[in-house]
Amino acid sequence: MPGIPHARAKNREWNGVLIKNPGGYATLLYVALATRSNEKRRAILEATIRVLREQGLRGLKIEDVARAAEIGKGTVYLYFRDKQELLKALVEHRATEFYADAEAIVRDDRPFFERLRDLLERRLAFIDEWRGLWGAVAAEVAQGEAKKAWLTGLHERYHRILTDFVKDGVARGELREDLNPELVGAALSALGCAPQLPVDRGAYLDQLVEIWQKGVGAKS
Amino acid sequence: MPGIPHARAKNREWNGVLIKNPGGYATLLYVALATRSNEKRRAILEATIRVLREQGLRGLKIEDVARAAEIGKGTVYLYFRDKQELLKALVEHRATEFYADAEAIVRDDRPFFERLRDLLERRLAFIDEWRGLWGAVAAEVAQGEAKKAWLTGLHERYHRILTDFVKDGVARGELREDLNPELVGAALSALGCAPQLPVDRGAYLDQLVEIWQKGVGAKS
Repeated sequence: MPGIPHARAKNREWNGVLIKNPGGYATLLYVALATRSNEKRRAILEATIRVLREQGLRGLKIEDVARAAEIGKGTVYLYFRDKQELLKALVEHRATEFYADAEAIVRDDRPFFERLRDLLERRLAFIDEWRGLWGAVAAEVAQGEAKKAWLTGLHERYHRILTDFVKDGVARGELREDLNPELVGAALSALGCAPQLPVDRGAYLDQLVEIWQKGVGAKS
Repeated sequence: MPGIPHARAKNREWNGVLIKNPGGYATLLYVALATRSNEKRRAILEATIRVLREQGLRGLKIEDVARAAEIGKGTVYLYFRDKQELLKALVEHRATEFYADAEAIVRDDRPFFERLRDLLERRLAFIDEWRGLWGAVAAEVAQGEAKKAWLTGLHERYHRILTDFVKDGVARGELREDLNPELVGAALSALGCAPQLPVDRGAYLDQLVEIWQKGVGAKS
């Protein structure tokens, strides 16, 4: 598989964006290989999730991941240098899925506060998962300043999604015009942080959305 | 110092509350010893904070703490069985200080939203500190279910303070009467979670308080 390591090297940039010679045969080959490579990479990450859910983080072995993905141990190393790199990619993979879901909800055409409720519900689920597993994985992967920079990058991505969401709400006349979208985006990104409380999840979301409706809605 | 281990055993309950025989000589002696014991315990914890700030968590030694507190190593062990117990007590000490500050702000006699702003500012500072140091310390101390239960206990305490705060706001006619104080308390406890963003802290707090003023204020 001579193409795979090459495709892997480009992997991080891959999303159809960095193709410099569109239309050429080399590009088509690259796209085909990169797609296959991405699929296998994803399969390894999904297998890692299954292994982590069954066995936990301690004692996680690349062999177990390879077995769960039904591939050879060596193939895992074609995609991830070591366990550290695999775990880091895994957290990024789950976070990316969350951001994709968040963007899909935000880009929907429904009323702002319906979208907000769905978004907060998805966020609460993500935070639960993060606390239970990905937080521990993230702690393995990065420490100190590196961890802070990495987490800040993830936070900033969510913040951008929410800032755009607020701008959209203002543009549609559903939110007050005097709001600062960046700051309201920051405030929204904090929501979903307190689910470890003995309150009913549905009632909590209802109350939260009601407060925000009054707090940022155009007609309040 | 025969009284110290006894006083230490009662330490956790100590706050003047659990005295069963008020006025007796034994009680006076107990109070005197417990106060002295509490002061030394506190001095050890404050010394641990200084050592952690200088050296970080890795390689923290009881000797260093003893030296910073200007006491013998053996004395530290009179108060804390091991490093684990010391670190756990330390996180609880800092959290308790935060809760005391939060309660003082909440019990103040100023308008609700002035108190809310101060509370959120204090909370942001606490979360910053928690992320930078106490989170790592907490990760050393507890894992899995034990950690979850312990963190939930801390969360619940903050939640109670905020629920009472909301009830107070409603009683004074500053907040809407149709709010559910438990749920609004939960929503308030989430605020302060997103300071790792490139937004101005003061402007963020202003926007947040303004939204909440419209969202939960009696006159909106």
